[in-house]
Amino acid sequence: MRDLRPLFEPRSVAIVGASNDPAKWGQWLARGALRGAHRRSVFLVNKRGGEILGETAFTSLAELPEAPELVVLAVPAAAFEETVDAALAIGARAIVAISAGLGESGDEGRAREESVVERVRAAGAVLLGPNCNGLCDAAAEVELGLDGLAVGPIGFISQSGNLCYEVAQLAAEAGLGLSRVASIGNQADLDAAALVESFAADTHTRVIAAYVEDFRDGRAFARAARASATPVVLLAAGGSEAGQRAALSHTGALVSGSAAIDAACRAAGIVRVRTPRDLVDAAQLLLARHRPRGRRIAVVGDGGGTGVIAADVASELGLELPQLSEGLRETLAADLPATSSIANPVDLAGAGEQDFDSYGRVVGKLLRSGEVDTVLLVGYLGGYTHQSDDLALRELEVARSLADAASESGRPLVCQLMYANEPPAQLLRAEGVPVYREIERALGVLAYVATTSEGSGRDVPAYVTAPSGLVTGEGYLDARRLIEGAGVPLAECRAARTASEVLAAAEEIGYPVVLKALGLLHKSDAGGVALGLADADALEHAHARMDAALAPEGYVVERMVPTAGAVELIVGCKRDPRFGPLVVVGLGGVYAEVLHDVAVALAPAEADEIEDLILSLRGASLLTGARGRAPVDVTSVAQAAAALSRLAAAHPQIAEIEVNPLLATPDGAIGLDARIVPAV
Amino acid sequence: MRDLRPLFEPRSVAIVGASNDPAKWGQWLARGALRGAHRRSVFLVNKRGGEILGETAFTSLAELPEAPELVVLAVPAAAFEETVDAALAIGARAIVAISAGLGESGDEGRAREESVVERVRAAGAVLLGPNCNGLCDAAAEVELGLDGLAVGPIGFISQSGNLCYEVAQLAAEAGLGLSRVASIGNQADLDAAALVESFAADTHTRVIAAYVEDFRDGRAFARAARASATPVVLLAAGGSEAGQRAALSHTGALVSGSAAIDAACRAAGIVRVRTPRDLVDAAQLLLARHRPRGRRIAVVGDGGGTGVIAADVASELGLELPQLSEGLRETLAADLPATSSIANPVDLAGAGEQDFDSYGRVVGKLLRSGEVDTVLLVGYLGGYTHQSDDLALRELEVARSLADAASESGRPLVCQLMYANEPPAQLLRAEGVPVYREIERALGVLAYVATTSEGSGRDVPAYVTAPSGLVTGEGYLDARRLIEGAGVPLAECRAARTASEVLAAAEEIGYPVVLKALGLLHKSDAGGVALGLADADALEHAHARMDAALAPEGYVVERMVPTAGAVELIVGCKRDPRFGPLVVVGLGGVYAEVLHDVAVALAPAEADEIEDLILSLRGASLLTGARGRAPVDVTSVAQAAAALSRLAAAHPQIAEIEVNPLLATPDGAIGLDARIVPAV
Repeated sequence: MRDLRPLFEPRSVAIVGASNDPAKWGQWLARGALRGAHRRSVFLVNKRGGEILGETAFTSLAELPEAPELVVLAVPAAAFEETVDAALAIGARAIVAISAGLGESGDEGRAREESVVERVRAAGAVLLGPNCNGLCDAAAEVELGLDGLAVGPIGFISQSGNLCYEVAQLAAEAGLGLSRVASIGNQADLDAAALVESFAADTHTRVIAAYVEDFRDGRAFARAARASATPVVLLAAGGSEAGQRAALSHTGALVSGSAAIDAACRAAGIVRVRTPRDLVDAAQLLLARHRPRGRRIAVVGDGGGTGVIAADVASELGLELPQLSEGLRETLAADLPATSSIANPVDLAGAGEQDFDSYGRVVGKLLRSGEVDTVLLVGYLGGYTHQSDDLALRELEVARSLADAASESGRPLVCQLMYANEPPAQLLRAEGVPVYREIERALGVLAYVATTSEGSGRDVPAYVTAPSGLVTGEGYLDARRLIEGAGVPLAECRAARTASEVLAAAEEIGYPVVLKALGLLHKSDAGGVALGLADADALEHAHARMDAALAPEGYVVERMVPTAGAVELIVGCKRDPRFGPLVVVGLGGVYAEVLHDVAVALAPAEADEIEDLILSLRGASLLTGARGRAPVDVTSVAQAAAALSRLAAAHPQIAEIEVNPLLATPDGAIGLDARIVPAV
Repeated sequence: MRDLRPLFEPRSVAIVGASNDPAKWGQWLARGALRGAHRRSVFLVNKRGGEILGETAFTSLAELPEAPELVVLAVPAAAFEETVDAALAIGARAIVAISAGLGESGDEGRAREESVVERVRAAGAVLLGPNCNGLCDAAAEVELGLDGLAVGPIGFISQSGNLCYEVAQLAAEAGLGLSRVASIGNQADLDAAALVESFAADTHTRVIAAYVEDFRDGRAFARAARASATPVVLLAAGGSEAGQRAALSHTGALVSGSAAIDAACRAAGIVRVRTPRDLVDAAQLLLARHRPRGRRIAVVGDGGGTGVIAADVASELGLELPQLSEGLRETLAADLPATSSIANPVDLAGAGEQDFDSYGRVVGKLLRSGEVDTVLLVGYLGGYTHQSDDLALRELEVARSLADAASESGRPLVCQLMYANEPPAQLLRAEGVPVYREIERALGVLAYVATTSEGSGRDVPAYVTAPSGLVTGEGYLDARRLIEGAGVPLAECRAARTASEVLAAAEEIGYPVVLKALGLLHKSDAGGVALGLADADALEHAHARMDAALAPEGYVVERMVPTAGAVELIVGCKRDPRFGPLVVVGLGGVYAEVLHDVAVALAPAEADEIEDLILSLRGASLLTGARGRAPVDVTSVAQAAAALSRLAAAHPQIAEIEVNPLLATPDGAIGLDARIVPAV
């Protein structure tokens, strides 16, 4: 891990490009730096010298009386190299470059950044940016480009400047704030992964939030998050085509496919969200004393309507409201009037008003029951506060008893209160019980976090990046050899050319057979595949037809595998530019077209992980024996996919590798066609 | 339409059960009534007389000096009948019954309600409740049970008391409020439909919002919404199993399936939402000058990150961000600095700060272009307000120019601003431009409303409720006769009993044939269906086997229709207890199981509407000729479903009717099996 102490807790700082113009970065940075002048030396540098904000400005870095640990650059792109070099020359340990117009503007800018970064690294220094909005650290009283953000336990790493303000504002609404923020810009040197490592070591940061458009080394990001004891919430941009267009123009980002990001998040145990509000909502839940361990929730309401709505939204989000056991219902009933409903949702009905203690008792019993992973309290609590001082006090006692119940049970209590900013809500939040204003927020974030908890955080596998000794062509027979060699069974096959060779091959294999023409780009579409040839006549006829129409470089004859009781799947691997090789499993044939039902993991993946993935497909019931069919051998499918994933992870020369279809039967899995696309 | 003027604008009101206890309904109602004492006579009634809130209470309704138009009941359930009768006896025109413990508690309570309602109706009066929280009307200064709600253009009809407060509070946050609220409780007399009719005629109500658990007469609700010139937003509860459990215990509601509600909303042009916040968000959009007419949006941002996130979320919600035309991009580029992105999303980049006029110019050009249905502005606007008075003024000018651009273009502008409560946002809202705090809210509500606008509001068809002369059994041949008679082609069929009759039938039809045993509940599962019998031997053998195993009451022999190039569908009708007959179309066979891909409309439906429904199925590409297959005859499928829908709508004796599978081929559609379940 690189030492980022000089960046976030500098002993001295210089602002190059400090300015008297109130509309310029040079002034905002100088103002921010001077606010920390009681903690550290602050030097303002402007090539014209003079007085800036009451301080005498130096005309160059070389003039400074001591070497500043941190140098912040608010200079035009043209002066980027020369200023960084000057900072390194006087011994700066960290540099922040606000300057825009470099890597994000194209290849030339990127090359300029790269050469500067080489010199920064050679000097043992670090560089944040360029094209960034600076940083802040509340505990160290550092505000350089990002000012006036609410203070709290969230560390935020952002590839967007405005988003720092938006997240800070949303956090403040939930009584939260930011411990430290880094605007990462073009990530020429320090990337999101390096910052996650650093934030994980910061004692003031209790949850790490990140907005990232370009992951650079995606596996390093995932590894840093996996290694962090501090939970990580990620808002990753560019999952849509329009989003990719926008990200490219915003930061020149090379955006990863959403499935690749999902795979990395699952491997690393990262909670992935889709909006700034979600980011803050998830942070609030991750800051709670206990984290939900599954999808089962009990809903407790103090008025019927909200409980009904909560139940509907929970189901829609894939959360479960299990029926409560007879025993639990009896013990709840003992606490409640006869008009209450003690199904799940539990409706306190008028009980809350008649007996305020019923809130804590009921919630406590549900939390301790072990029948649910989380209890969600919805409703009116907090609204009595305005009715009388006595009720206001009673409500605070209720909030205290709820917080105690959650704390003792070891399971999370989450609240959705329409009076989300009244004293009871504030007390709950202060005690680590998340409180949300809207039901869809409380449930949405529970769904995000519960999903992340299931089977995630296994590991972030490594893969080979240097070309290996593997030699393979891109032809069909080459692909078959490689894939069979990796242990994936394929339908028996003989190469042949002439009619008599083809017939001899079929005799060896036994009818019915398949005839495939070789050397065609899309052999099936071109008419280069004939299935189910029952005898020599049919085979000869198919061969003659292909020879005349396609004149291929050769043929293979393959055994026609019976498809009754079998399901077609697709297994394969491809490379994401940032996250590396991915393994993809999905339903094949006509299902692929209609369902687009695929699941993705980082390669290499173990068979047991892939098996879980396959069983998570929407169409998994086709494989597990719905409607009286025999279940197919999912383990063999997973083993085949795992073998391909090892191949792809070991050989960067393979851009894509695919077995499609892979026929899954009750007794195993066998590939009927195969393909390799070499990296260019 | 019944006259609800005495309910919402009474000339006099009496509170029966008025009380001095500040924790009782009788006091809350009395307080509220007295606040309107400058507008109308207010009488407090308590059987013990005395002084209540400074007024002398009457000991019975009979004592009052004049007949109150409206009588509000805060009496125990035991006194319900006698108090209603007393109110009718003195000539009350409207009654509000807060009293709980009646219809929601079971059959006995429901019977009591029904007999009271008969007398209310006979007297020409109306009854709201029982088991309700009362009502309010801001313009008439009526507050009876619902107090202190923010005032504005939303009329709210609610089957939950707490929700009235929650919706009012959420509305206030958006600068909105409530014109009139009715808590409908058990809807013993006045139901949601009657209230929609009445709210539609209220000049102070510009959008009608409703929370409904039980629709009673669902078609009447849909018809009232369809006839209303005021738009209707609906939060319907109980779509999930847990939600149904909760609704049943909350109001004894008979909850409709979510698909039935969706069908009614589409027919009536109702915007359906799923949470209270959504309800208010949608109301805000429907109050805008112009309503979005489709899914195409342009996103304009003043900072890259928010535009990227907006694009991703929009795509996820099914909205489209079309690429802008070359011509439009050129004219936008003329307004913007070179660093701006003029793809969609458009990123003003620094242009906003350098030239505030660019906001209005760019948004105006996009709105007028016709290339999108809606423009969404996202970002920082409103944040400059705190930097200087000059910037604060410039921001207000920007807001004004944006509002003008939207007003002139005839298309809606929607804003998502992180500074959603600053003066620019307030100005925009006041000018009818919706402003949301979070991007998922702005886009979520656009998706709801755009979806509603597409092909919805066609009509709410009527259906027959009185049993007709139709006589049909539930046997297979009865079902076939009825369905063929309605014009749905079924595979050619002959009834037979003995082996020789069966063989003779097959000779007439021609091999291959299907043999089906009659009179079995699940003939296919029981082994009572033999497909693809190629010749007399196979048929005889199948007949002998069924005779021995099943001893059925008879057989049919049917033509075996070739399935190559065909797709199996399911078409049928069933009855929702509240919304009446529904027509259902979906993919059949193994797809039905994996995709659960069905679409539902109110029956009877026209073939063209059903055709649109079929093409909206997720698996529609199977029908329209994906991957080089010939498209199947969707029109014939729609005609068959339309015929079944007419049958079901005309004959309440039919509980369910189904053709499954209906085989769709490029040349038509033919049913291969049929079923009728008579109503019990």
